Amino acid sequence: MPPAASGNGSPSSNEKKDFQPISGRHGPHLNSRNPYQPVPDFLSNVNSFKIIESTLREGEQFANAFFDTAKKIEIAKALDDFGVDYIELTSPAASEQSRLDCEAICKLGLKAKILTHIRCHMDDARVAVQTGVDGVDVVIGTSSFLREHSHGKDMDYIHKTAIEVIEFVKSHNIEIRFSSEDSFRSELVDLLSIYRTVDQIGVNRVGIADTVGCASPRQVYDLVRTLRGVVSCDIETHFHNDTGCAVANAYCALEAGATHIDTSVLGIGERNGITPLGGLMARMIVADREYVTSKYKLHKLRDLENLVAEAVEVNIPFNNYITGFCAFTHKAGIHAKAILANPSTYEIINPADFGITRYVHFASRLTGWNAIKSRVEQLDLDMTDAQCKECTAKIKQLADVRPLNVDDVDGIIRQYHFNIKTGNNQPLLKGIDHPAPGIQEAAADTGEPAAKKLRTELDQDAAKCC
Amino acid sequence: MPPAASGNGSPSSNEKKDFQPISGRHGPHLNSRNPYQPVPDFLSNVNSFKIIESTLREGEQFANAFFDTAKKIEIAKALDDFGVDYIELTSPAASEQSRLDCEAICKLGLKAKILTHIRCHMDDARVAVQTGVDGVDVVIGTSSFLREHSHGKDMDYIHKTAIEVIEFVKSHNIEIRFSSEDSFRSELVDLLSIYRTVDQIGVNRVGIADTVGCASPRQVYDLVRTLRGVVSCDIETHFHNDTGCAVANAYCALEAGATHIDTSVLGIGERNGITPLGGLMARMIVADREYVTSKYKLHKLRDLENLVAEAVEVNIPFNNYITGFCAFTHKAGIHAKAILANPSTYEIINPADFGITRYVHFASRLTGWNAIKSRVEQLDLDMTDAQCKECTAKIKQLADVRPLNVDDVDGIIRQYHFNIKTGNNQPLLKGIDHPAPGIQEAAADTGEPAAKKLRTELDQDAAKCC
Repeated sequence: MPPAASGNGSPSSNEKKDFQPISGRHGPHLNSRNPYQPVPDFLSNVNSFKIIESTLREGEQFANAFFDTAKKIEIAKALDDFGVDYIELTSPAASEQSRLDCEAICKLGLKAKILTHIRCHMDDARVAVQTGVDGVDVVIGTSSFLREHSHGKDMDYIHKTAIEVIEFVKSHNIEIRFSSEDSFRSELVDLLSIYRTVDQIGVNRVGIADTVGCASPRQVYDLVRTLRGVVSCDIETHFHNDTGCAVANAYCALEAGATHIDTSVLGIGERNGITPLGGLMARMIVADREYVTSKYKLHKLRDLENLVAEAVEVNIPFNNYITGFCAFTHKAGIHAKAILANPSTYEIINPADFGITRYVHFASRLTGWNAIKSRVEQLDLDMTDAQCKECTAKIKQLADVRPLNVDDVDGIIRQYHFNIKTGNNQPLLKGIDHPAPGIQEAAADTGEPAAKKLRTELDQDAAKCC
Repeated sequence: MPPAASGNGSPSSNEKKDFQPISGRHGPHLNSRNPYQPVPDFLSNVNSFKIIESTLREGEQFANAFFDTAKKIEIAKALDDFGVDYIELTSPAASEQSRLDCEAICKLGLKAKILTHIRCHMDDARVAVQTGVDGVDVVIGTSSFLREHSHGKDMDYIHKTAIEVIEFVKSHNIEIRFSSEDSFRSELVDLLSIYRTVDQIGVNRVGIADTVGCASPRQVYDLVRTLRGVVSCDIETHFHNDTGCAVANAYCALEAGATHIDTSVLGIGERNGITPLGGLMARMIVADREYVTSKYKLHKLRDLENLVAEAVEVNIPFNNYITGFCAFTHKAGIHAKAILANPSTYEIINPADFGITRYVHFASRLTGWNAIKSRVEQLDLDMTDAQCKECTAKIKQLADVRPLNVDDVDGIIRQYHFNIKTGNNQPLLKGIDHPAPGIQEAAADTGEPAAKKLRTELDQDAAKCC
């Protein structure tokens, strides 16, 4: 029986009824026991968001990105297979090759809708509607910075051009989004005015873009909530990560009523990029595991990230969300102990949802025999404390030979238990017949003083905590 | 004159009076023109936060971290030099070496206060107060998860033990902080009750810890604001980054009245870590550049990160805040054009504050002659459009030889201008006498059709935008 089902009273009433504990050891929906879960809000789209995946547009603006046609098609297919709702492509007005690539991807017959991203300009719009895309994302800078130093146009011009471009695209019966650029440094009245205008003439979505990465979560919530009261169409949001808020801002935007989030694989884009697809998955699976797991093929995230990382010649960051090498590594003795008893103690995300294995760090002095005793009890095996300590010592020896995951440790414990009950002496870990020389020596030397020293060390280890 | 000083009316009244434009081209405090800047809040400590740097405690729990004494001392000195307020060390109860290392660092005579982090237990407290630390950080799990699966104690026990430990540490005249663990999955009434108790007996700080990384920004704001009304002591916060909110949550905590933020270099810690020092600097310099630049030696951030990255054998992530290789790289033609006109158009952080050089990506087909023309005007040089286009073509050739930064481009433009005015033909870029063979060939081939093709390409390039 999963331990999370016992103790601490009955599950709260808002617990997901159809939640299935994973691997028999993850508890019920974690947030159901979180008293700080916000009161359900009719504005929130945390449970029904859509992804506009922009690796092939924003991502192409990443310093290292030079995708040829074959690579673009490979990435588009992988994104579609993962389950993203939209795939956004570089403007066909950017270059002849960009136009041809856009047409080629439109012809693939993907489930995801294909968008292209253009300046708010009739020249670009005329090219875009001929490519076969399902929709056009139009953008124009509205902040004083961009109006002054980029395109040099005033708000009257922006209104007039926006109306012309939107009506033209709509006349081709495809989706149209109108976005401001650098929205968080634009004047509020300017913004609301242009959004109201384009909403009234029937745009499908309006977009808010934190082009420079300056927005903070509560600013985002406030602006999106205000906008939600002004327009009736969908609201798309685009967040750069210069100041570390791209995932959090996306979440707050959804809380305030945004419907669509822009992402790219590994977050690649201008400068240090935008909301990463994997980071958004990490955030959203905690908010609504059922929605996320039913919609996206999460176990393909790692392959998708490897594909893009290889294409743009970067390494997956060591601390990457979910797929980073240490994302599910537990080291301190007190953590390892609790994780073995119930992974929910120190994990808010179940790695199995992403096809990833948890790794409990048994190879350091931080390992404790409490962790092993706790696991022995969970496995319903009959071992004394002394036997648990001896088994822990053997696990520490084997951990010096190679890293151990939870399954390894379970196997060792079961074999050790089998051996002591049957008087047998079979290897504890398949493929490792005997510890390496140095370790064997240490093991052979485990007399009474050594055992006492080990016990002291193990007690000390549990003092490490987070 | 910096371009940001012109146009768009007068600076708002909350502009920092003593702001100094950097490199003569960064505009005034950017947020002064941001209409979504929250109304100043008497609760907010965004302008007066302190850093508790935990690379030598939380960071030691990172999978790859095995710091020996010399390395711990080197890191402690570097953190102190950077200007952090506190340095937190692993519990002296964890191992004999941990205790000795703690004593050694306390004897260094650093400006930063030295803390150690222990379980809420008298055994640990007795060891800690003998090490010479300036303060002790006490932690105990208060969530049902940890009470059930980790230490197994009830709230009565927690109250009783907390009082005993706190009064003992206070009797040694050093600082004492009491923190819950996994605060965001603890019962609100339990939390507020224990915090009120420890505040009343004179604890220096209470701590809130998002141990599993589940908290979202608005939850953080609500909890810290509620706590701010219950205790009169300082409030420290600790955020894990499993769901991408560790920087944003720290910011929202400060907005709600928290006083201290826990960080580690590169965010290293359990799993994928906590609020990174560099990421927090990026966030806070946007909120209050004057406070951050006056207090922390930002130009030492890169060395500090390199020191720790080397010690734990990881690479700096490609998309790392501020110091990642692409953090200040601008690629799309429309971005490059505006960045050259005024960096504030697409940069919220001035790289010069961190001793880092901006890099405008001239080496790709995204480069546009508009960018060069704009820069020529800024430099107050007299060149026709045709000359600007020819100069752009030469820059593109040189960019194939090696990457160019803004200073390089300025140098090329000035030399080109000098050559056309004097009829000279000196090399445009020092150290590169002539383009590489392939490039020379292309350059020699620039007849009229080629020039027309180039012009078309450059116009198309400007169509790429963000």
